[in-house]
Amino acid sequence: MEQKIYLNQSDIPRQWYNLAADLPNPVPMPLGPDGKPVSPDALASVFPMNLIEQEMSTERWIDIPEGILDILYRWRPAPLRRAVNLEKHLETPAKIYYKDESVSPPGSHKPNTSVAQAWYNKQFGINKLTTETGAGQWGCALAFACKMLDMECKVYMVRISFDQKPFRKIMMKVWGADCFPSPSENTTVGKKLLEEQPDTPGSLGMAISEAIETAVGDKTGKTRYSLGSVLNHVMLHQTIIGLEAKKQLASVGIKKPDIVIGCAGGGSNFAGLAFPFMADIINGEQIEIYPTEPTACPTLTRGPYAYDFGDVAGTTPLLAMHTLGHAFVPPPIHAGGLRYHGMAPMVSQAIKDGLAKPKSLHQLECYRAALTWAQTEGFICAPETSHAIACAINEAKKAKEEGKEKVILFNYSGHGLMDLTGYDAYLSGKLTDYELPQEDLDKFTSVLNDLPKP
Amino acid sequence: MEQKIYLNQSDIPRQWYNLAADLPNPVPMPLGPDGKPVSPDALASVFPMNLIEQEMSTERWIDIPEGILDILYRWRPAPLRRAVNLEKHLETPAKIYYKDESVSPPGSHKPNTSVAQAWYNKQFGINKLTTETGAGQWGCALAFACKMLDMECKVYMVRISFDQKPFRKIMMKVWGADCFPSPSENTTVGKKLLEEQPDTPGSLGMAISEAIETAVGDKTGKTRYSLGSVLNHVMLHQTIIGLEAKKQLASVGIKKPDIVIGCAGGGSNFAGLAFPFMADIINGEQIEIYPTEPTACPTLTRGPYAYDFGDVAGTTPLLAMHTLGHAFVPPPIHAGGLRYHGMAPMVSQAIKDGLAKPKSLHQLECYRAALTWAQTEGFICAPETSHAIACAINEAKKAKEEGKEKVILFNYSGHGLMDLTGYDAYLSGKLTDYELPQEDLDKFTSVLNDLPKP
Repeated sequence: MEQKIYLNQSDIPRQWYNLAADLPNPVPMPLGPDGKPVSPDALASVFPMNLIEQEMSTERWIDIPEGILDILYRWRPAPLRRAVNLEKHLETPAKIYYKDESVSPPGSHKPNTSVAQAWYNKQFGINKLTTETGAGQWGCALAFACKMLDMECKVYMVRISFDQKPFRKIMMKVWGADCFPSPSENTTVGKKLLEEQPDTPGSLGMAISEAIETAVGDKTGKTRYSLGSVLNHVMLHQTIIGLEAKKQLASVGIKKPDIVIGCAGGGSNFAGLAFPFMADIINGEQIEIYPTEPTACPTLTRGPYAYDFGDVAGTTPLLAMHTLGHAFVPPPIHAGGLRYHGMAPMVSQAIKDGLAKPKSLHQLECYRAALTWAQTEGFICAPETSHAIACAINEAKKAKEEGKEKVILFNYSGHGLMDLTGYDAYLSGKLTDYELPQEDLDKFTSVLNDLPKP
Repeated sequence: MEQKIYLNQSDIPRQWYNLAADLPNPVPMPLGPDGKPVSPDALASVFPMNLIEQEMSTERWIDIPEGILDILYRWRPAPLRRAVNLEKHLETPAKIYYKDESVSPPGSHKPNTSVAQAWYNKQFGINKLTTETGAGQWGCALAFACKMLDMECKVYMVRISFDQKPFRKIMMKVWGADCFPSPSENTTVGKKLLEEQPDTPGSLGMAISEAIETAVGDKTGKTRYSLGSVLNHVMLHQTIIGLEAKKQLASVGIKKPDIVIGCAGGGSNFAGLAFPFMADIINGEQIEIYPTEPTACPTLTRGPYAYDFGDVAGTTPLLAMHTLGHAFVPPPIHAGGLRYHGMAPMVSQAIKDGLAKPKSLHQLECYRAALTWAQTEGFICAPETSHAIACAINEAKKAKEEGKEKVILFNYSGHGLMDLTGYDAYLSGKLTDYELPQEDLDKFTSVLNDLPKP
């Protein structure tokens, strides 16, 4: 049984799919501090105009420039694989396919957009990008992309991660990026924070502020800021995942999957796989689509749909999305990429429109699934990815009960080789489950009452 | 330009190639403590008889059992890739191809033999394997293989690596193996060592002794020992690499490479790629084959060809090979897999017969090559692998000078994601080059005078 389904380079998708063209209801516009829709010009010091236009586009198909494909060819088309060993272990009649995004140089789906963003910036005359990073996944992806395009890259990494997780920091250095612990002495906001709290462990909110200040503050106008998830153009760039998967399934005679699964933090790997299949649902196909998230950070399953800030400090435009409130502090679960308070507006809108049904999963169940995966398929997955695997296992068991030969497709968003301490904690019995108490949810979402409603 | 050349699962080689059938001169027999050739029975408590037979076989082609292929399909056939971005960077007319062995679950070529060895042991009725490991590469590969075959695995890991390099230890645990710091309290030899030197950092020699004692000491007879390099059957199992590469080159119209390169520690990844091409040389083809090694551990380029022990303690049979003397202590270079004092007898014999020309490379040149690789091709290679890349770069530059469109093929033996501290040390300017002083070489090899000559 063929376990790896490849696509020739010449068969790579040459256009991204923009769900905005087909959503039953449009995504509400982002709002500025004045409560009015943000104008493209207001974003021009942060992002290049070509990406701002893409952010607002409702064209269904957008050409992927050759210059971007040339870089993606290092690992794309990515393999579609069939998890025959897991199927055997579960004794399920279901066929479990997964799109392997772990094969990129940084080890996740992130470079699908970092490469595209760096390329559009370069086209616009920008030669330096800044960003923030938590555990370092996104920082690595942007460092990689900038090096491939011979651009400079400055990454502000949350100080506690900078100190405790040295490996992704070294990867960024290998790809020539400057990586600073945030808060840093590089920026006015960083200096102020260090003065007030010299021992602060830092936070993503602080790092975002420093990255944006560095971009906007470059008086030559040659620096911009880059974001790894949430925004519409990020979702767009990731759709190459689902478009490839469709071609690969077709090549083995599968017209459509019955179930599509992706873990969802900011939403980009989920959207990348799922959006092209949502187009099929809109056209009348029967496909179940499940974004999966931790019970510890239940943005989609328990967070209200509201206007909220993208960052903790409340400096970004207001986005219409599922959110736990921008001041939400998630418990220390190991799936760092799934600890975001909000969710991409396009993903949120798609759920509101009934195109996908979110599910939440407990941490221990996910690590159990990750271990089953490693001990059957052999590969070690990222803790985020385990949320998709656990859901796929549940659906495969259901298919067994129902005696149905369902086709399950999930996104293998990244490998876990840089996240082994989480496995160690699990194997040593040190991990627990977290369920967000209702009173905490109420407290964190109460700030939404003072903001405009979508 | 297609950068990834895949092979369908149905086109995987179904036989290993045994160079012993074609070597102009046979490999001298291993000798026991009495100076006489070791009999198969003398090894029966350490290895299963089916592998002992394979070790001594001179059959040219040996069938790969379906049960082994079923496990290899998780990542094999492995991709052959073309390094078009490095070619562009070097402005070379050479075509640089590499066989990507980093895609296996443990991240190196090692599971090609760990899976085969575990399978043959299981066929023989064995249910537990023991081994030693330094940095953990081989321990991971055997842990993975045993889990795939539902066997137990006990790994003795050199204590200082156990303490300083926790990540591969966690990988072994994920695959269900027991990993102990060596010396341990598990064995008589371990207890004795701990009594004499309670603070010893351990050594591979000590770990080998413990692993063998554990295997031999199991009175049920259900435990054996497994070795990750050096032996003939290990070389055999790795030839699937070169056999796949040949098919892949043929699929893009390349009849033969001009140059074949592999880094050589114990010799197995080099042999795996190179042996099938040596068969072509023996049949009259013109191919240059280069095993590459560190100047700090110049086994092939400066070590005499002699009978020597495989381990520091002098407990193994005597093997005819290039060696720096079994008491050789290499300087602390980061390419841990290339710090072995000896070299596989089959590789040593092939070099003696003129089938390959070894080259030695300095550590800094190799890290420079690894960085060029990461910044052009995008991927981060293992420090061992950088010794093949550096040589490939040198040959590509030579091809440019000569204006020749040569085909260069090398073995990408593993990724460097678990070896990032070496990159950090290099980027921080903390690494140096080592050249083994002649008086040290003379001292270490003087022990060979008291041993039989091949």
